[in-house]
Parts: sequence; structure tokens; C-alpha cells
Amino acid sequence: MGLRHIGIMENNIQLYSYFRSSSAYRVRIALNIKDIPHDIIPIHLLKNGGEQYSEDYKKLNPSAQVPTLVHNGNAIGQSLAILEYLEDVFPQNPLLPKTAADRAMVRQMCEIINSGMQPFQNISVTQFLSGAFNSTEDQKKQWMATWLHRGFESLETLYKHHAGMYSFGDQFTNADCCLVPQIFSANRFGVDLTSYPKAKQIYENCIKLKAVLKASPEQQSDYQKA
Amino acid sequence: MGLRHIGIMENNIQLYSYFRSSSAYRVRIALNIKDIPHDIIPIHLLKNGGEQYSEDYKKLNPSAQVPTLVHNGNAIGQSLAILEYLEDVFPQNPLLPKTAADRAMVRQMCEIINSGMQPFQNISVTQFLSGAFNSTEDQKKQWMATWLHRGFESLETLYKHHAGMYSFGDQFTNADCCLVPQIFSANRFGVDLTSYPKAKQIYENCIKLKAVLKASPEQQSDYQKA
Repeated sequence: MGLRHIGIMENNIQLYSYFRSSSAYRVRIALNIKDIPHDIIPIHLLKNGGEQYSEDYKKLNPSAQVPTLVHNGNAIGQSLAILEYLEDVFPQNPLLPKTAADRAMVRQMCEIINSGMQPFQNISVTQFLSGAFNSTEDQKKQWMATWLHRGFESLETLYKHHAGMYSFGDQFTNADCCLVPQIFSANRFGVDLTSYPKAKQIYENCIKLKAVLKASPEQQSDYQKA
Repeated sequence: MGLRHIGIMENNIQLYSYFRSSSAYRVRIALNIKDIPHDIIPIHLLKNGGEQYSEDYKKLNPSAQVPTLVHNGNAIGQSLAILEYLEDVFPQNPLLPKTAADRAMVRQMCEIINSGMQPFQNISVTQFLSGAFNSTEDQKKQWMATWLHRGFESLETLYKHHAGMYSFGDQFTNADCCLVPQIFSANRFGVDLTSYPKAKQIYENCIKLKAVLKASPEQQSDYQKA
């Protein structure tokens, strides 16, 4: 279990991460874009019933979820709280625009993904559907598709008004840190993205960046084929 | 439908709200604590199949959800994006602490509620469970209780380390703007809060404030008995 390695970390920032977690993926992108040296400590969400439920890990993050960022002795959970913290403390390569109204639009895009899409694809939720609700694979697919399509439809409308090369104009922002992992998940769950050409184009533009590519699940030390 | 009233608004801030929406309730609290003059425009989430689905409303908020805040011609959706915007533009009676680490903890508490609890009690989700999944009332209760208990357990641990009179020390913050409506919802859904004495005490302290009380569902012009 990763926690025991704390003593030998090279940097003063550690990110507890799982290669396939879309929330951890968001933070990996932000750390790379800002070029912040950090150690990644893998937490396997399935092995041994889920390493995130260990008592040691829950001391860092009582929600027993990834990601957790540890910096200067502070442990921070919830990916959006971490993205805001990184922006507060490491202003280089800003991931939020300059005016309050523009920041609000970026945060709105982030939250459509963070509270409107990702929660419904969370492992604990799909496990609950299979368990307590005895859902079939088809029902789970329908469930996932419903929430992902709703989110992508809203985003596509916002992109029509606000996108440039990236989600918000030509500046790479937290909205892109959230979009890239969400497209990755949608592809994984077989959700058809044909109706969202803007989202697809933004994604293509994002993954051309080395910082984004380096954060992808396939590039992680804990990567395993499905 | 409220949108037609736009012409005769008294203030330059409008909040599109539904009395029972816990997300709109968060923003109502923040506006009152900051003492920002505003008009509230009710959007009935159930009447006529849901006023939030009207074309006029979706122009303001493509997610077809409440709340939406309109200020200086900018329409902002997603309650957490709105809370951040209010903090950015109206710094009086701050709802975030001063240091980055403290702000991160408040945002973590907000997100446990915003992305870990509220999405699962959303009307559209419970409607989906009754419809496509043909869930019984008992199953829906179990669903709701599962996610609400998980969230409250995490929060209670954080409160043990960080709470004072309010969620984060003795400063009323966005974490309280999120907690009060979540407790209101838990009570409504019959979730037993006995194991969360800290959350209950913070709630009691919060509702002593006039600004909080004035934001409650019962005090809204669109209030209806269940």
C-alpha cells in the first residue's frame, strides 16, 4: 500500500491517484500544465476490496476517494478543491481566466462535469446499482448514457458560445482539465459522442499537449489493461 | 413563467430559484449573508412538466437546472460556480477563509455535499429510478440514505478537526451555505442524523442567523406545502 512510502518521497507534493479515476486524471493534468514537481502514489480502487478504504488512507481523505493532494502537511480531497488550491498557490500557467465573469463560466463548465456527470459513473455507484438494485449491464449502460448525454448536451451549448481552441477561448483552463478525462470515460463506457463535435475537437486539441498526454491513464505507473 | 418579468426587476441581480432546491438554497444564503440586493424569480421544477425546460430558461442555463444567477447580463449556472463568483465580485462578509489551505478545506467540505450527496437526491435522478429502473419507494429510500450517510460520515470527521461554531472554525463560510440545505433535504427524506452530532450542532447555530432563516424554503414566495 502506497502510504508506507511517504518517508522517501522526492518532492513536497504527493498526489494519491488511480490511473483510471477521472477525478485524479483532472489533477494530474493541472500539475503537469503548471509544471509542478510531484510524486504520484497509486491507490488501487479495486484490489483487496479497495485500498482507499484502509485506515491510513482515510486519515488523509475521510471520503475514501482519490485524488488526495498532500502539500506542506495539508491533505486536500475533492478534485475541484485541489484545482482551486493549485491555482491559489501556484499561479504560473493560470488555469482560470482573469475576469470574475469568465472564471464563473469556466467553473460552470467544470461543475457540469464534476457534479452532473462524474458522480453517476463512479465505481461505488455502479457497484451499488449491480448490488442493491440488481441492475443488468444494459440498465447500467442506459444509466451512464443518460447522465453523460445530458452533460455533454449542456457543454456543447456553452462551447458554441465560449470555446476557441479549448473549452474557454484559446486559454487552456480547468474546464479542459475536467473535459479530457470525461471524454476518456465516455469512450470507455461506449457513449456515442457524434452529437458533440465541439467537445470532440477541444479534446483533440488538448491531447496534442505533452502535459495532457503525460497525465493519461496509459502513461501511469499503475496502468493496467482493462 | 418568471422570465417574462425580467423587464421590471428592481435590482441588477436576479436569482432563478425553486424554494425546495437545495442548490438554489445555498445561493440564497450567500446572497443574504453578503447582504446583496437581488430579485428572486421562481422556476417551478414540477409544474407543466418543469419550467426549467422552457426554451427561454435554457437560454440562460443549458443544463435546465436551478439556480441561475444573472448579473450585468451574465448568466451563471451551477451553485458552486455562483458562490465563487459572489466571493470574487462582492468581497464583503467573506464566505471563504484567508489562507489557501483553509480555503481548500472549505471547498472540500462543499464538494462532498455538491458532488457526493446532492446529485443523488436530484429530482431528475429519482424520477429516472422510478421510471427506467422501476424502483420501489423502499429502494429509493435506500439509495438516498446510502449516499447521504456516506457524505455525512466524511463531513463529521472533517468537522471534528476543523469545526467551531460553524463548519470551519467560527467563520460562516460556503461550507455552511452547503450544509444547511443538505440537512434540510436529509430531514425531508427521513435520513436519521443521530450519528452526526457536529453537523446537527452547526446547523442549529446557522439557522439562528436571520440571513440563513430568510433563505429557507418556507420563507420563499413560491413555497408550497409538500
